[in-house]
Amino acid sequence: MGSAQADTKASGEFARDMRYIPTRITADGRDGYPVEADRYRLIIARACPWANRAAIVRRLLGLEPVLSMGICGPVHDERSWTFDLDPSGVDPVLRIPRLRDAYLARDPDYPLGITVPAIVDVPSGQVVTNDFPTMTIDLSTEWVRYHRDGAPDLYPESLREEIDEVSELVFTDVNNGVYRCGFASSQGAYEQAYDRLFARLDWLEDRLTRRRYLVGDTITEADVRLFTTLVRFDAVYHGHFKCNRNKLTEMPALWAYTRDLFQTPGFGDTIDFAQIKEHYYVVHTGINPTQIVPKGPDPSGWLTPHHRAELGGRPFGEGTPPGPPPRDERVPSLK
Amino acid sequence: MGSAQADTKASGEFARDMRYIPTRITADGRDGYPVEADRYRLIIARACPWANRAAIVRRLLGLEPVLSMGICGPVHDERSWTFDLDPSGVDPVLRIPRLRDAYLARDPDYPLGITVPAIVDVPSGQVVTNDFPTMTIDLSTEWVRYHRDGAPDLYPESLREEIDEVSELVFTDVNNGVYRCGFASSQGAYEQAYDRLFARLDWLEDRLTRRRYLVGDTITEADVRLFTTLVRFDAVYHGHFKCNRNKLTEMPALWAYTRDLFQTPGFGDTIDFAQIKEHYYVVHTGINPTQIVPKGPDPSGWLTPHHRAELGGRPFGEGTPPGPPPRDERVPSLK
Repeated sequence: MGSAQADTKASGEFARDMRYIPTRITADGRDGYPVEADRYRLIIARACPWANRAAIVRRLLGLEPVLSMGICGPVHDERSWTFDLDPSGVDPVLRIPRLRDAYLARDPDYPLGITVPAIVDVPSGQVVTNDFPTMTIDLSTEWVRYHRDGAPDLYPESLREEIDEVSELVFTDVNNGVYRCGFASSQGAYEQAYDRLFARLDWLEDRLTRRRYLVGDTITEADVRLFTTLVRFDAVYHGHFKCNRNKLTEMPALWAYTRDLFQTPGFGDTIDFAQIKEHYYVVHTGINPTQIVPKGPDPSGWLTPHHRAELGGRPFGEGTPPGPPPRDERVPSLK
Repeated sequence: MGSAQADTKASGEFARDMRYIPTRITADGRDGYPVEADRYRLIIARACPWANRAAIVRRLLGLEPVLSMGICGPVHDERSWTFDLDPSGVDPVLRIPRLRDAYLARDPDYPLGITVPAIVDVPSGQVVTNDFPTMTIDLSTEWVRYHRDGAPDLYPESLREEIDEVSELVFTDVNNGVYRCGFASSQGAYEQAYDRLFARLDWLEDRLTRRRYLVGDTITEADVRLFTTLVRFDAVYHGHFKCNRNKLTEMPALWAYTRDLFQTPGFGDTIDFAQIKEHYYVVHTGINPTQIVPKGPDPSGWLTPHHRAELGGRPFGEGTPPGPPPRDERVPSLK
């Protein structure tokens, strides 16, 4: 969830508030929100790793024509995410300047964090859900009728147990682990998070030395979830969150794995390093009071050969890669 | 100068206050302080790169038996460096708890920064000088009569012009350049310092690809000055000062050069990474308000083979390496 919906325990340990709006958009519409074309709008920020999951899955499944996407700017104020990248600072579909407005439309007393990703019901202007772990699974399993021809199965029945198992470890130690390093308010809590993070990365390095993808031999939801943290690792987590035993580029299998995904249509074409860096370094004034944004690291390595195809694997299984992103969703290419 | 004797210009640019006590300890004693055995005490902090120069040169020249050394702790308060590492927090020779006391003994109205390195006249308890660029040159050229057998000539007559020239570039763009990155208070000033730093590192990488040492074919004052910044690069400057185009370990010649020196008696045996990290991350609350000290980077690479001998060069010229440091000056060895 991209925003400061967080808390720190007495031990100095960072604890993420995991309460989200649990309403689901389903094929059968049992929560009152049936899957429908042109009805909903996915709101993300390029900066946010949790929102990045939804942006990637939407691309891989080819949902762009039926589920539009609004993009908040990287830097938000105390009232959270805004549409400052859009002309006049207003989302062209929702006609609101702040994502908060859609949360208050749903509940005028909305008491929790204003987070991305969120899916908004366009007719009512209300947020339907911001429950990011369920959101991508639902895009895979409930929106099937709108998947493009050749869309991969990111959450195949036979692998769900393993995907869930791996995702849980990756969430605790890596996705949220980097935040537990960066937002620890005691040396002990930081060191504990750091040790867990790097122990898990070592475990992943080992696992991915022998196989191209995390689960099975194709890209799954588990890869999407790991990718969004790894792609930000050297740009922000290594320095800003003090995850600095080593850079991602110093772990050969993980670095090649992340590059492989980066170069796969649907992944790298959702990444905007400038927005990622600006977000973390400008918003977290408790960690970076000068708000100066590092110029590094040099991103040129992202496009170098990864040689992961030698491990076998079929990125899209029986399917095909997605085409290029819609013109108005393109990110700046790497220098 | 290890301490916050600094200023920031309107442009956000960091400007180091370069006013030091210019008194010199010379062979002829023209400033009232002749070179003498057992009269002076060098005060350093392991953390400080400017003090590190003097600690290295004293080791290389074998001046330990005649010029004693006091070591301030890594973390200082608003009244600057203290002897908190010593029993009862008092320097055993000067009998003072704070380096400041020796500055005030020299001048009760001392108006400038309380910095290391400083050389104190033990009988009077007064700081003689804290002028770090002159200090190491004087150890080489004025203390000759006390140099050990086999001491190298770190500032040979025939190379002085080139050493001074290279040192000036290294000081501006690298030694002080990393501080100009870290203490910049505007994005523009930071980026300018970053560009100059990495342009100079590229220049040094190129120069040191073809030769073992910076000037001539032996270790000189120029290498000492470059080493003290490079050895701290990945541990503090890369993250804390946002010098993050790449790590030192990503520049093959510079990394091997720094490792070569690190493994040379007199260099690595003056380095205490724990104190270095603690100093920067705890003292600079304007940059790191949480005061959490990163656990990384992994230092194990420092002891790996450097293969620099293949470039030729004679580390100590006609001389020999120094023996091990005095027992009470040993630093923790790397894990």
